[in-house]
Amino acid sequence: SRNIRLAVIPGDGIGTEVVAEGLKVLEAVGTKIEPTHYDLGAARYHRTGETLPDAVLDELRGYDAILLGAIGDPSVPPGILERDLLLRLRFEFDHYVNLRPVKLFPGVETPLADTPNENIDMIVVREGTEGLYAGTGGVMRRGTPHEIATQESLNTAHGVERVVRYAFEKAKTRPRKKLTLVHKTNVLTYAGDLWQRTVNRVAEEYPEVTTDYSHIDAASMFFVSQPERFDVVVTDNLFGDIITDLGAAIAGGIGLAASGNINPERTTPSMFEPVHGSAPDIAGQGKADPTATILSVAMLLDHLGLRTEAAKVEQAVADDIVERLTGWASRTTHEIGDDITARVSG
Amino acid sequence: SRNIRLAVIPGDGIGTEVVAEGLKVLEAVGTKIEPTHYDLGAARYHRTGETLPDAVLDELRGYDAILLGAIGDPSVPPGILERDLLLRLRFEFDHYVNLRPVKLFPGVETPLADTPNENIDMIVVREGTEGLYAGTGGVMRRGTPHEIATQESLNTAHGVERVVRYAFEKAKTRPRKKLTLVHKTNVLTYAGDLWQRTVNRVAEEYPEVTTDYSHIDAASMFFVSQPERFDVVVTDNLFGDIITDLGAAIAGGIGLAASGNINPERTTPSMFEPVHGSAPDIAGQGKADPTATILSVAMLLDHLGLRTEAAKVEQAVADDIVERLTGWASRTTHEIGDDITARVSG
Ligand SMILES: CC(C)[C@H](C(=O)O)[C@@H](O)C(=O)O
Ligand SMILES: CC(C)[C@H](C(=O)O)[C@@H](O)C(=O)O
Repeated sequence: SRNIRLAVIPGDGIGTEVVAEGLKVLEAVGTKIEPTHYDLGAARYHRTGETLPDAVLDELRGYDAILLGAIGDPSVPPGILERDLLLRLRFEFDHYVNLRPVKLFPGVETPLADTPNENIDMIVVREGTEGLYAGTGGVMRRGTPHEIATQESLNTAHGVERVVRYAFEKAKTRPRKKLTLVHKTNVLTYAGDLWQRTVNRVAEEYPEVTTDYSHIDAASMFFVSQPERFDVVVTDNLFGDIITDLGAAIAGGIGLAASGNINPERTTPSMFEPVHGSAPDIAGQGKADPTATILSVAMLLDHLGLRTEAAKVEQAVADDIVERLTGWASRTTHEIGDDITARVSG
Repeated sequence: SRNIRLAVIPGDGIGTEVVAEGLKVLEAVGTKIEPTHYDLGAARYHRTGETLPDAVLDELRGYDAILLGAIGDPSVPPGILERDLLLRLRFEFDHYVNLRPVKLFPGVETPLADTPNENIDMIVVREGTEGLYAGTGGVMRRGTPHEIATQESLNTAHGVERVVRYAFEKAKTRPRKKLTLVHKTNVLTYAGDLWQRTVNRVAEEYPEVTTDYSHIDAASMFFVSQPERFDVVVTDNLFGDIITDLGAAIAGGIGLAASGNINPERTTPSMFEPVHGSAPDIAGQGKADPTATILSVAMLLDHLGLRTEAAKVEQAVADDIVERLTGWASRTTHEIGDDITARVSG
């Protein structure tokens, strides 16, 4: 079979460091993957003014998948790299499912007192292409006492239904078969009504799935006080952004949180990235934990149908994590990558 | 001096039960407060179709303050009571400061492992009159595959600057003198730019205050992993809604979270309410914890300049909480109210 073509975008800050370890694991697990690097990010922006040239976007379209490190640097005004590079990739490739598992691996210390690890095991299905991320809005009389700045949340039947369907399909495959819509229907009445009606309608096709609803404020509370309430969570782009960072916090920290920006129809390459950002404060020091990237690599393998390899990587991470507990000295980015690599090769 | 005129809106669900205890404490602490009850909420809506009649709104305008229990009932479609009653009060009375302390009382068990209680001591200054709560937006082709639902976040220089100023004034009075803006400037670029520029500009007038910034997603994580990062937090209406429920979760639970909807110019009555909702599932069973309402009463007293009384109520709650730890059997709503009442009378 032909080699799998992988586009690699290390990006900014610790992105380069963690992606290197992800690739090492990918090679060690014995896949026929052919990586090509793209130097998108702050450095290129400063050098050429480009964020994501159209020609590069077109080229990326031809890959089987994308592995991304992290995007964002304090030297670039907020929003430029995020909107014109990261979000543009998600939008142009119609990554309408942003899949983020929130699972506390056995042996990881939870920051929540009195919460057994197995109580934290959910999957957040975050919508990835609309809502407040659409970027519509504007400003009038900027810099004056009469300035008005607006942001618009755009929600379509098309966009909501497809991600809700995906979430029900996911819920069907899980032991607890429970789906919770997280929104703020009592304040965002137009969008909330669309989301709630869509969930209600699709639910009729999934009688085996229990559906539930939680306002985003209450859900944030429950993530801390009763995480066992959640199995599959479906939510909009912004609420999903917030709740998955919170999810990372309760599931062992941002160093372990993986994600996939998925186009389920596979008409475009899906993109896998750690949930964490570029962390410029620790960049280049070998301090970043590459585990989130390595787990994102496992999601990538799974998406490409390489389930044995995906399971091997996940198991290697799980084993590595158990060892961490037994008083392992703190390791560098490379060392963690090497240790997990050794496990998948062995 | 003349009696203080207090409008009381118990509202729905547990609202009635907790407000009764709040009033008991208010009387016991020896204030000359004259309460008038208003039966706004789900029951009145079902009986008469009214949420907040204009005549009642006008009448409420004449009070010195409002004590509110909780608004919302599953028998009423989401948004009706919230928008037309609760949010209408906040908007009409220009409660642009929604003040929400997040403080872990000594002796309360935190749900966060390894976090000393004193590390959780912040005040969230949530904007109360604009942002996504403005209610603008709409729907087209409802119920069809071509439906579009929008929500708009409206942010004005006027609205942002006044709440930012309030937050700086608060920060100035606190030992750590630190103010953190929480927003999502890298995605909500128009609104984020207005908020960030406003904070930067006002900061020049407060050289003694350290300012910081955190994205809402990162802040949600830090609330769990490093709550000591925060002293005064200033944020928009929706982010404030989310982060204060999360704040309640880390500071001993929603049973303890108090809030004030404040008009600092005092041209309208300010309104005090527990952060928790109407909790219809436990309504009428004497299970609700009235402490959040009693702490809201302390905020009310403080706002009215009755600082001795406010301090007395706060101390009574603090003492009661310490006793809870020493294995006190679980008490009913009344019993907790009675116990705190006894302490303020004593
Ligand atoms: C960097 C930022 C634009 C991005 C987002 O908000 O989606 C990040 O926070 C994430 O969650 O992937
Ligand atoms: C009931 C609801 C409209 C309200 C809000 O969103 O402001 C509540 O959650 C709160 O925080 O006071």
